[in-house]
Amino acid sequence: MVVKSELKLIKSLQQKKYRNEHGLFVIEGKKAVEELLNSNFKVFRIYLTKDVAPIMDDKNEVVIFPKEMDQISSLKNPNGVVGVFYIPKPDTVDFKDWIVVLDDIQDPGNMGTIIRLCDWFGIRHLVCSKNTVDCYNPKVLQATMGSIARVNIEYTELEHFLSSANGPVYGSFMSGDTVYEKELSREGILVMGNEGKGISDRVKALCTNTISIPRHGTSTTESLNVATATAILLNEVRRG
Amino acid sequence: MVVKSELKLIKSLQQKKYRNEHGLFVIEGKKAVEELLNSNFKVFRIYLTKDVAPIMDDKNEVVIFPKEMDQISSLKNPNGVVGVFYIPKPDTVDFKDWIVVLDDIQDPGNMGTIIRLCDWFGIRHLVCSKNTVDCYNPKVLQATMGSIARVNIEYTELEHFLSSANGPVYGSFMSGDTVYEKELSREGILVMGNEGKGISDRVKALCTNTISIPRHGTSTTESLNVATATAILLNEVRRG
Repeated sequence: MVVKSELKLIKSLQQKKYRNEHGLFVIEGKKAVEELLNSNFKVFRIYLTKDVAPIMDDKNEVVIFPKEMDQISSLKNPNGVVGVFYIPKPDTVDFKDWIVVLDDIQDPGNMGTIIRLCDWFGIRHLVCSKNTVDCYNPKVLQATMGSIARVNIEYTELEHFLSSANGPVYGSFMSGDTVYEKELSREGILVMGNEGKGISDRVKALCTNTISIPRHGTSTTESLNVATATAILLNEVRRG
Repeated sequence: MVVKSELKLIKSLQQKKYRNEHGLFVIEGKKAVEELLNSNFKVFRIYLTKDVAPIMDDKNEVVIFPKEMDQISSLKNPNGVVGVFYIPKPDTVDFKDWIVVLDDIQDPGNMGTIIRLCDWFGIRHLVCSKNTVDCYNPKVLQATMGSIARVNIEYTELEHFLSSANGPVYGSFMSGDTVYEKELSREGILVMGNEGKGISDRVKALCTNTISIPRHGTSTTESLNVATATAILLNEVRRG
């Protein structure tokens, strides 16, 4: 049994304002919830419909009615598992490996894909401008497929962050130097810009290198999507 | 002025059955329509709302009411330009360059992204199994950003097609050989499999090589999305 006010609270967490106010976020799906339970994330409560097998044997696991699930889920077809977790305090960024920096990424799908890519390529730290889409947005979490459990994400002033970095800062630009011809350092920062505007001038000024992925098609070809470009550049970083 | 039966015809083209019956497809947006007009695609008719500047000076360009636009558009917020084109007969596949083969790709967004990637990397021929999502599906076209004008797409029996190929056939598998360690040939075929099931056994039997993108994260990391993997592998093919 859950009281109405609790359902209302969970529902409100679909909005960033209330996530920040309560320090909580919602993630849906058995696999994603299990991955977070096995990570450093702290659980607030898990909600299940009765057709789903219990996940934890714990008082924080609550069985609810399908009607209640419909109320708290952000999905058209809820999958029967909603986890509510505490938003963690980010770890201190470690400059001993590659770091990905996002300058105002707006699309939740792109953000989710980039988090998943960081996980795949073993990138531990993702540093985002304050205007980048919130990583605890339900659509972002849907696209991460649980990878959020393994990537440390911080929102900060990029100018301040990049000024404090020692290593090379590689900005991805349409007109940058061909990435194949660059000798990429063992550690560094990869900066990816906004979907429409690219990297802002203030962040560009702090990039020590520019890189690009050569186009083989004609000049009318639309630029690569930012998540796709991140995939290719992280592969370049890791292939050595 | 357009008659009701014409609006009904255009609307019906959102379904594959009617696209094949009439040999026509719909593409929306000024840029995409212009790209197709400047290509080998043959135009049937262009529909505009009166707030949009004319694109062609031609009797095949028709100004319609916003209400009519709402009827024929597949978008929630129509952008005022709907183009109807004839489905072209595919060109003969040329084995002198790399070819991408898709074995039952189902997601329209993935399909659109892969077409756009072929365009970016100058891949002229995309060969798809008969169960691959239709490239003239409105959601696919939305994701291609006009790239459909520059990629030759054929739907065929993959077993027959691959049997007739001379060069190496590289299948993308989770457990394939590390792509970084492979010497990729100057021309060849890259096979990408279905989102859930991967490459089918019958197609696998015709692959002369297996390749994979190494994972740097932990073993719980979800596999890469097929469009992302295609991006990385085409970059590997082209970087030389």
